[in-house]
Order: sequence, then structure tokens, then C-alpha cells
Amino acid sequence: MWITVKKDADLSDVKASLTELGVWTQSLQQEGGPGRSLAILPHSAAVSSERILKIPGIDQLFAAESRMPKVDAQSGQILQEENWTLGQAPILMAGPCGVESEQQIHQAAELVANAGATFLRGGAFKPRSSPYSFCGFGQEALVWLREAADSHDLKVVTELLSEQNVDQVAKYTDLIQIGSRNMQNFALLKAAGQTGVPVLLKRGMAATVEDWMLSGEHLLAAGSRHVVFCERGIQSYDQPFRNLLDLSAVALLKHVHKQLVIVDPSHGAGRKDLILPLSKAALAVGADGLLVEAHPNPGQARSDGPQALQEEDLNRLGTLFEQSEKRAPTLCLKD
Amino acid sequence: MWITVKKDADLSDVKASLTELGVWTQSLQQEGGPGRSLAILPHSAAVSSERILKIPGIDQLFAAESRMPKVDAQSGQILQEENWTLGQAPILMAGPCGVESEQQIHQAAELVANAGATFLRGGAFKPRSSPYSFCGFGQEALVWLREAADSHDLKVVTELLSEQNVDQVAKYTDLIQIGSRNMQNFALLKAAGQTGVPVLLKRGMAATVEDWMLSGEHLLAAGSRHVVFCERGIQSYDQPFRNLLDLSAVALLKHVHKQLVIVDPSHGAGRKDLILPLSKAALAVGADGLLVEAHPNPGQARSDGPQALQEEDLNRLGTLFEQSEKRAPTLCLKD
Amino acid sequence: MWITVKKDADLSDVKASLTELGVWTQSLQQEGGPGRSLAILPHSAAVSSERILKIPGIDQLFAAESRMPKVDAQSGQILQEENWTLGQAPILMAGPCGVESEQQIHQAAELVANAGATFLRGGAFKPRSSPYSFCGFGQEALVWLREAADSHDLKVVTELLSEQNVDQVAKYTDLIQIGSRNMQNFALLKAAGQTGVPVLLKRGMAATVEDWMLSGEHLLAAGSRHVVFCERGIQSYDQPFRNLLDLSAVALLKHVHKQLVIVDPSHGAGRKDLILPLSKAALAVGADGLLVEAHPNPGQARSDGPQALQEEDLNRLGTLFEQSEKRAPTLCLKD
Amino acid sequence: MWITVKKDADLSDVKASLTELGVWTQSLQQEGGPGRSLAILPHSAAVSSERILKIPGIDQLFAAESRMPKVDAQSGQILQEENWTLGQAPILMAGPCGVESEQQIHQAAELVANAGATFLRGGAFKPRSSPYSFCGFGQEALVWLREAADSHDLKVVTELLSEQNVDQVAKYTDLIQIGSRNMQNFALLKAAGQTGVPVLLKRGMAATVEDWMLSGEHLLAAGSRHVVFCERGIQSYDQPFRNLLDLSAVALLKHVHKQLVIVDPSHGAGRKDLILPLSKAALAVGADGLLVEAHPNPGQARSDGPQALQEEDLNRLGTLFEQSEKRAPTLCLKD
Repeated sequence: MWITVKKDADLSDVKASLTELGVWTQSLQQEGGPGRSLAILPHSAAVSSERILKIPGIDQLFAAESRMPKVDAQSGQILQEENWTLGQAPILMAGPCGVESEQQIHQAAELVANAGATFLRGGAFKPRSSPYSFCGFGQEALVWLREAADSHDLKVVTELLSEQNVDQVAKYTDLIQIGSRNMQNFALLKAAGQTGVPVLLKRGMAATVEDWMLSGEHLLAAGSRHVVFCERGIQSYDQPFRNLLDLSAVALLKHVHKQLVIVDPSHGAGRKDLILPLSKAALAVGADGLLVEAHPNPGQARSDGPQALQEEDLNRLGTLFEQSEKRAPTLCLKD
Repeated sequence: MWITVKKDADLSDVKASLTELGVWTQSLQQEGGPGRSLAILPHSAAVSSERILKIPGIDQLFAAESRMPKVDAQSGQILQEENWTLGQAPILMAGPCGVESEQQIHQAAELVANAGATFLRGGAFKPRSSPYSFCGFGQEALVWLREAADSHDLKVVTELLSEQNVDQVAKYTDLIQIGSRNMQNFALLKAAGQTGVPVLLKRGMAATVEDWMLSGEHLLAAGSRHVVFCERGIQSYDQPFRNLLDLSAVALLKHVHKQLVIVDPSHGAGRKDLILPLSKAALAVGADGLLVEAHPNPGQARSDGPQALQEEDLNRLGTLFEQSEKRAPTLCLKD
Repeated sequence: MWITVKKDADLSDVKASLTELGVWTQSLQQEGGPGRSLAILPHSAAVSSERILKIPGIDQLFAAESRMPKVDAQSGQILQEENWTLGQAPILMAGPCGVESEQQIHQAAELVANAGATFLRGGAFKPRSSPYSFCGFGQEALVWLREAADSHDLKVVTELLSEQNVDQVAKYTDLIQIGSRNMQNFALLKAAGQTGVPVLLKRGMAATVEDWMLSGEHLLAAGSRHVVFCERGIQSYDQPFRNLLDLSAVALLKHVHKQLVIVDPSHGAGRKDLILPLSKAALAVGADGLLVEAHPNPGQARSDGPQALQEEDLNRLGTLFEQSEKRAPTLCLKD
Repeated sequence: MWITVKKDADLSDVKASLTELGVWTQSLQQEGGPGRSLAILPHSAAVSSERILKIPGIDQLFAAESRMPKVDAQSGQILQEENWTLGQAPILMAGPCGVESEQQIHQAAELVANAGATFLRGGAFKPRSSPYSFCGFGQEALVWLREAADSHDLKVVTELLSEQNVDQVAKYTDLIQIGSRNMQNFALLKAAGQTGVPVLLKRGMAATVEDWMLSGEHLLAAGSRHVVFCERGIQSYDQPFRNLLDLSAVALLKHVHKQLVIVDPSHGAGRKDLILPLSKAALAVGADGLLVEAHPNPGQARSDGPQALQEEDLNRLGTLFEQSEKRAPTLCLKD
């Protein structure tokens, strides 16, 4: 946003009023003329145009049109499906990185259900940096995953990797996951969107929040019923972390844009010993749920074993949700 | 760390045992020989050498000597001064960016005391990107700050900017702040350390946790009684944030290295509208306290006004601490 | 790599020998034993195992197996197609961001041919952050592009965005471009690879060189005749740049891994006024060619107009190649 | 910069004219009114206000006042000292990381002089991450350094670490180096500036170009005769590099801000095997010189040995300067 100041106004008064609202400004002067203006910097607190125009001394306010009307329309909405909902009390989504056998996913489902989770996760199609790594059992694994979830009264979230599998995946899942590496795979976003099924959209490795939301717009424009954003850590320069979990982005999406946000603390740091504290932080910052890797036997996992929780820790994690159901409404700045 | 595997051991069994402990490994083969070994990657869960050596099949384990014995010696310690303490229930440190007048800092102290804070913050010497910005009133401001704090039963934390002011600052403050821009100003660290006064060491704009801890070692080696680490956000590539608050680093320092950690959510995102959610996240992840900017009249602040809380919001923030005093011991992974 | 040191060897002599070779080491001590070892840090100069094992005092050397044998097999190879080649004298690839009309691409082809380029670039399918932006004319544009190139004796490079268009794109292009956003779209890599056509693989927005090379391995494993790497800038935290052109990565790929590398200075900084200096730097660091945006009328471009060169500047850029054809062999460190 | 568009003007014509100049814009609409404006994005090509105001249809242009008038005043200037100069043909500055003995620095000076260098570098005071590492011989080393330089007709550049050593360092050096870790140590900048001696200002680990230039303004405001900027690599997320050499920043400082810029390719990547290619790139992009680590016997170096060049490679590097003296004037975009 950008503001012009009235000729007879006191510029420092105008700036003081904006400052009190949490707005950062930069002063600009008209070239060859007396005009004065203020640019509103992007890390300002969100303040409506109406509120700003009430400040005495402001002449005109210029703003860019939103590039994401359909994401904006989701603002403040919960996701209400036939037999599950997202956006009221936070929920737990858990399960193994990959679906490795019928038996493994059934054991995992039991573990996950016992911890109080709502969703079972598990990859039938796995994106892998190396072409020689285990890449999932595909169609077969989708069937196992659905059956394991159904038999434990869980919903399913699983990743879609290829346009060619879109109908297959849409058929077996309640929530289609688009992974970090495909956040801007626009062909896949379109295909996923056309199914109508709600999508869990993971953030790209160094994506801006704006680009992430624009990818959500791609999905909604193509037909998704709802887009849920999932923060899973961005590229970190620091070696003790696999990724850098960005809870500021969660706060922004949740408290400013009022979107549904899930946090993945497993990939978030990649460290099993930090999953519980980061989960607590994620819920405290306002996340609508957690997506966590859990495995009945991490030592046998074909991928991501070191970050998979076992029974005892998963149950501890589950207790966070019991507490949070009773929590008071989010503490926020006054409007 | 690096491990060699016994000749007759099953490598996949060894890897499975490590994976269950949350340890990421990379397999390495001896050049021109039969030896097998595993490198332990730095984003592994912290596991002791003793625990690893119990795994059947492991032959030798090689580890680097710690580069920071004095920081290690602080592990698990609280900071116990004559009439204040840090590391038990979390505390609040608040106040204006700069000490701007005797009246302003007294008003701020009242605000801060009313919100339940333990420390009054305020800069007598201000680091500023531009040489033409307000850089503090120096000595005079130190006196005002101390008096304002004393008259409201608050402790003082203030920044040291120059070796030349070290005695002056040490005389008036309970906790010397070293700012982000000086995290690796080793001459200043030495001077601050020699006073013995505890130090709040802010993280540099793109510092690794290791370099941050090594700067703490500089302080302790020079004589500081205790070093407290303060996360205040790192360089962000995303414009809606002034900085990127890295709560993973807080989790690592707190739960793995067991150090005292304060979080500054004001600089953390630079957005007034995200301070409360990020504060809640910081306490949830385990921070020992918050350092927050507050001003009786942000519109008149000479620096950082847009991120300064006013009375009502500061009081809301204060209520977080009442809750956290009663909180159960931190939920952690089993040892 | 990890090294064990002989019992009777002088550790500092061993380290000195490694240091002279440009190798950074970290010392490790055996837990509960006398063993000494050295970890070789990843930012060391590339030195062969054979060379290291010749150092007196070194006992055993452990190394990881390469994760990308097919990329390794490309090392030092040029790309020799029926009527074009890459890897001898550097070449110029230029053209508009998008193919916007038959007339536009013919004009562009003339411009590009006159500047001495070998390849015509132009997008028939355009990846766009927003779903409401121009996304290319598809199949029709492929035909225009091919005809324009052929009539000016140019080769074609164009981006593949969807698995569904792979045959179509492969038919009309000499070099399939995989864009940054799809660097780890493994389904697309597989589809592109199966055509056999050489691929220009752009680096992801925050990809490590290893992940980039592994994506190349995906292509080669699926059947690509050759993978050419294209650096186009990574996520930057600094606003005067659209992206941060990483010529260190080009140097590493070129001089250590001996791969074919193209540099895109247009997206690299996004600034028209830096394209020429960055192009010179790219050629100096060893790039096998440049991929540059040029447009007969940038003011009318439907995307990326501000970074598109016009005739005069493109011709200046072309003169860099005349000079470089005559250049002496690359100055390198002695082997 | 921000622009308002005349009521009767065609917005797309105005945008096209700006696009042709390399200017990126964002359209903004007046809230509740007919006004239209364009924000000029910071990664636009540098275009003067005068040029923009000539575009038909533009009404008013608003711009921020420069925050660094003294740096601006250096624009296009060379540095002319009594018996050396910077900014004409590029020069070589070389020498060991630390001054380790009288003999070592004399040997180094001979090496450096033979390679055709103008400056001898070497640290008398060394900033070290760990307090237990070698931190230089101080005053004594300054004397050795000066004598070694004088006896080989070289100038001296050496780092200032503490306000307490400013007179001492200023006495023995021709160019005071401020290191990365102290780029925003404003007390040190002031002290260094007050000596009047020209300063080589290294960029902080994640500094924006604007903050870097503002630190230059601190120096000039305090009295430095000239500030020379030195790019030495920023924080990298990729392990094969010690730092990420940012030649885009060099291009911006050189071709847009027309400042004197030196590149340090030794720290730039930390890899001995990439120093030569990166040096060539630095000169090609327009650097006024290189600052390179060289040691008569790197195996015995007390710091940074693995990135220190030896005689043969330093001589090869020296030949780059012979070529560049004869080079044609820099190829630039037309004005």
C-alpha cells in the first residue's frame, strides 16, 4: 500500500498514527513538487484500508488488487466434510512415511488410532531424491492404506505425485497431499484441483508465503473444495536441522489470512528429539493440526525411520490434543 | 560422530538400532578393504556415546572433542543471582527500544511492572543501520533506566555497544545485552566477559547455533558468570516478515544443550500482530522468558515504534506467564 | 570421507599434508581407546582417494559410494548431437520468455540468429505463480517455435510442464527444458527421460548441488541421452535482486564434476542492467553457454518483459562469444 | 519509487514504456477513487527520475531520499593515495590469513610480490569463532607485516578488531580491513573512520547490499577518506561451499552504484580448487581487485591453510592481471 498526505497535514502526526497501528512506513517526496507520501512496508501489521483512511491528514490510499480471490474467500472458514471437519479443535494426522506392507500399515493404523489421531498418513507413491530409493508400492498400497484407516475409523491423507495417478489417489483418500517438491508443479495442481477433493498443500523448500498461497489459488481455481496449508520446514543453512520449521509463516497464515494450517514437525527439524517441543509450539501458535511420522518399527522403515515416533512418544503427543480441546479461544490482538 | 562396524556384524541390524534411536547415518566403505563404517549425520537426535556403544556390532566410535567446555558446563544450570533468578518459571523482560527521556522510561517501567514483568529493557546506546538515526542518550539514559527500574522493583537489561562503555554499562545493568550485530565482535565479548556480569547474547543474523554457542564460550572464557542465549529472528527471504523467528534453534538449545534461552518475538517477526501467537509458541517450545518491546506511546517512539506493544496488549502477554507458572514440567522424549 | 591414522603416525604431519592439498579436516578421537581419525569436510578441494592414501601415516580411508553413477559417467563428456554440439566453445541460447504469436517468434528468431546464437528459446507452456496469468499457447506455439528456428538455422529449447505433453514437446525441441519449479517433479523427470532427448535441467529455488545432480540421475536413469545443468539463481533475501545467481555452483559443476553447465543471467538477477556483467562472469567461470531472454519488443511481452534484451544489447552479448571462441584453454589448478 | 498515472493516460502504454527500460511494476488502484499508480519494484534496472518523468502519461513520481549521501558521493570515483591507486586496472592483494612469524611474512611477501601483487595482506589480530584458537601476535605482527611489505614494495591491508587498537593499526596499514563479523560493529566503524585511513569493508554474513552501504556511510560520516567494499561470500545452505560468493552484489555495486569493489574468492567458496575460476569471474564482472589467501607453506598455517594458494597457483592467478590490464573498457548497457 501507498499513501499520499494532504498538503496541510503534519507528516509526523500521520506517521505516528500509523506507527501506533503497527504499520512500518517509508517517506517519499515528489520529484520536483511538494507532494509527500508514505509507502507501507510489507512487514507491517495487517490494517484495513478503511482504518487507515480514517487517519487525519491522509489524502489518497493506493492498494494492489488481491492476486488470490479464492484463497481470500476461504478466510475464516472451516473445512466441513461429510464425516470429518478441520478448523475447530486441532487434530492429529500420523502414520509412516511410506506404506511398506499390508501388515505394517495396519499396525501403524492401530498405533495412530490409539494415540487419538483423526487421520492416517502414509505414502503409496514416494518422491525420492535418488532414483534408486524405494518409491512406494503405488495402487496396491493405496488399497492397504484405505482398508487400514477404515478398520480403525481413521481418515486418509496421502501424496499425489503424478498427473497419471490423480483419479486413483482421489478415489482412496480424504485429503490429497501435494508435497513440497511439487508446490509449483502447476500441471499437478490443476489435475488435483479438478477432482474437487480437499488438498493439503505443503510449502516449497524456499517458497514465499505469497507463492504458496498462489499455488493454493491454482488448486481452488481448478476446483478443489478447500486448500489446507502445511508448513514442513524450509531450507536451513544450519546442519543440526534437516529443515527449518517456520512458525512465523504459520502465525501469518492463521492470524492474518485466517487459513487452515497444519504443521509437520517431523520433517520440520528431522530430529526425533525435537518433535514434541515443536509440536507444542505449533499448537500454541495456532495450528489446526499436526502431521507426524510414526512407525510401528522405525528400525525397519524404508525411509525417514530416524524421525518416526514409536508408540510411547506418539501417545505423549496425543495428550497435547486432549489439552488443547479444552483450551480457551486464541489470545489475539484486539481488532 | 563416526562408527566402525565389526567384521561379522550385520550392517542392516546396526543401522536399524541407530534408526530406532533417531540417528541418521550414511554408509561408508573402506577403500581397497573390507571395513564398513557409518557416519552419524548432524541432524540426528542427540544420543550419548555410551548408548551407541551398547549396540551389538559396533566396533569403534570416534567423536570430536567439544569446542565449548564452559558452555557445556552451564548445561542444566539455572542462573541464580542475589535477588533474581532465571531458568525456573519463565519471565518477562519488556520495555522500549530506546530510552528516550526520563519521563518515558518511568512510564514504561510502570507499564512493564503492571504487566508482571521481571526485567525492564531499554537502549541507552542504540546500534543503527544509518549513522544519521537516533543512537541513544548514553550515560544519562543508563541512570534514568536504572532509577526507573529500581522504583518499580524491576531488574535491568541493556545493550553494550562499545568496549569503551563496558564499565559504565556493567555498573547499571543486571544483565548485559550483546546485540545480533556484535555476536562475533570478539573484542566486545572479551570486555563484557571480564566484568563477570551475566550476559544476554543475541544470535547473529545468519549465525549457526554452533557459532552462537562459541560466542558464548568467548564470554565465559573471559569471565561471565552465565551466558543466556536470545533468539531474535534470522535473515528472512520473505517480505511479510522483518526477520524469521527460528524456534527450532530454541528447541535445540533448550532440550538438547539445556541452556537458558530467551525469545524476542518483537524483532522475531517485526509484526505487532504476530507477537502474541509467537510468544505463546516460544513459551510452549520451552523458552525461559520473553524479551518484548513495549512503549507508553509507540507513535512517539524514536525507533521500532511499529513493533512496540501498548498497555492492553502487554497485559495480555503478561497473562501468559501466570498460566505458565502453573504448567506441568516440560513434556519430553524419554531418556 | 573419513580417515584413520596409524598408531605411530604424527597427527599434525598428516593434517599438514591434507591441508596442502586443500583438504579441511576435523579431528576425532576414539571413545575409550587410542584411535585417531579425521573427517574430511565437504567444502574441501576434490582430491582422489588414491592421492590421500599416499600420505604417510594414513591407515584406512572410508568413502560413500556415489549416489549418481550415470551423472558421473557424463563427467568430461561433451554433448554431440547430429547437427549441434555442446561443451566445446560456449554457445548462446536466446529468445522470448513466451511464444506469443507466430510473428513475434519469427522476429525473435531473426534477432537471435543475427546475434550469433545457436538456440532459440521460447515457452509454449508457461509456469506462472498465478493461475490467472498468461500460460502459453501450447501445441500451436510449439509449431511456430520450430518453424521460426528452422527458418533461421537455429536449434530449439523449450520447457516441458506436464507429463501429458511430453511426446508433443519432445517432437518439436532439440533440448527439453525442465524448469526450477519442477526440478524435483520426479514423474515429469521420468517422462522426459524416457524420450531420450537431451534435457536442460534448471536448478530448484533452494536446491543443493547434490539434489540437483540427483535429479539429473533421475533423467539419465529413465533414458535421457544427456543432462545439461542450468543455473538460474536461487532464492535471495536481498530485494534489489529477483534471484541470486550462484556462480560457485557453476564452478563446482564445471571444474570438479566436469558437467555441462548453462547459465541464465536473465532470471539470475532479473535486472536488465546486470545481464551483461553477469554473462561475462558466467563465461569466465567456465559456463558452456548462456540462456538469455530477448524480445523484439519487450514493452509488449506478456511475461518477463523487464528482463528481456533488445537488439542492440543482444548483439553486444553476442560479441562475448566471438571473443570466447578464441580464448585459451581454461586456467586451472594443477592436477 | 511510486508513480501516479494521469487520468486520461493509457495505463498499458505507461507500463510498456517502463518495461522497455527494464523496470518491474506493480499496479495499484486508489481506494474509493479513480486514481491509478504503479510501484516500481526494487529489482528493476536503475533508471533516473528524469528519464521516467519523460514517459507520456506519468503524472507524479515519488522517491525516497538517499540514506547514504557520502557513499553516493564516492560514485564513479577512484581512490588515489600518495603512492597507490585503486579503481583503474584491477589489482591483487594477497598474503597469509595470519602473520605467524617474521620469517613467514617475509617469505609470503616475496611470493606475493613475485606474483605481481600490489598489496600484502595478513592478520595481526585474528577474529576466531573459538576463544581457544590462535588469535594473532598483535602489535609485534604489525611491525613484521609493515617491514615485509616495505622491503618488497608492497602496500599493507590488515584487519582492525578492537577500538583499542585503532591508532596502532592505522599507523601500520595503508588500508584498514573491517571483517564480516564487524560490518555492523558501529563503535569500531566510528573509530576506524576517525583515522581517515581508507577502509576495506567486508560484507556481513547475510547483509543486504543496503545495510552494507549504510555501514560504509558510518565510516565516511566518521571521517574515512574512502570506503572500498569487499564481497567474501555469504551464508550458504550448501555443504560443498564454505560460503556462497555473491557476484550479483558485486555487479550491483560496480555497475549501478559505481563503487570500488574487491572480491575475496578464498573465503568466497573456501575451496582451493575453485579460487581460480571464481577469480576470473570476479574480474569479468568488474571487480577492482582480488583479496586472496596465499602462504609459503599452507600445511604449517595456523588458520585457513586449506584455502591458501602456493607459489605456482598464485603465479597463475597473477597472470589474470596482466591480461586484464590490457582489457577493453567494460562492456555495458547503453546509457
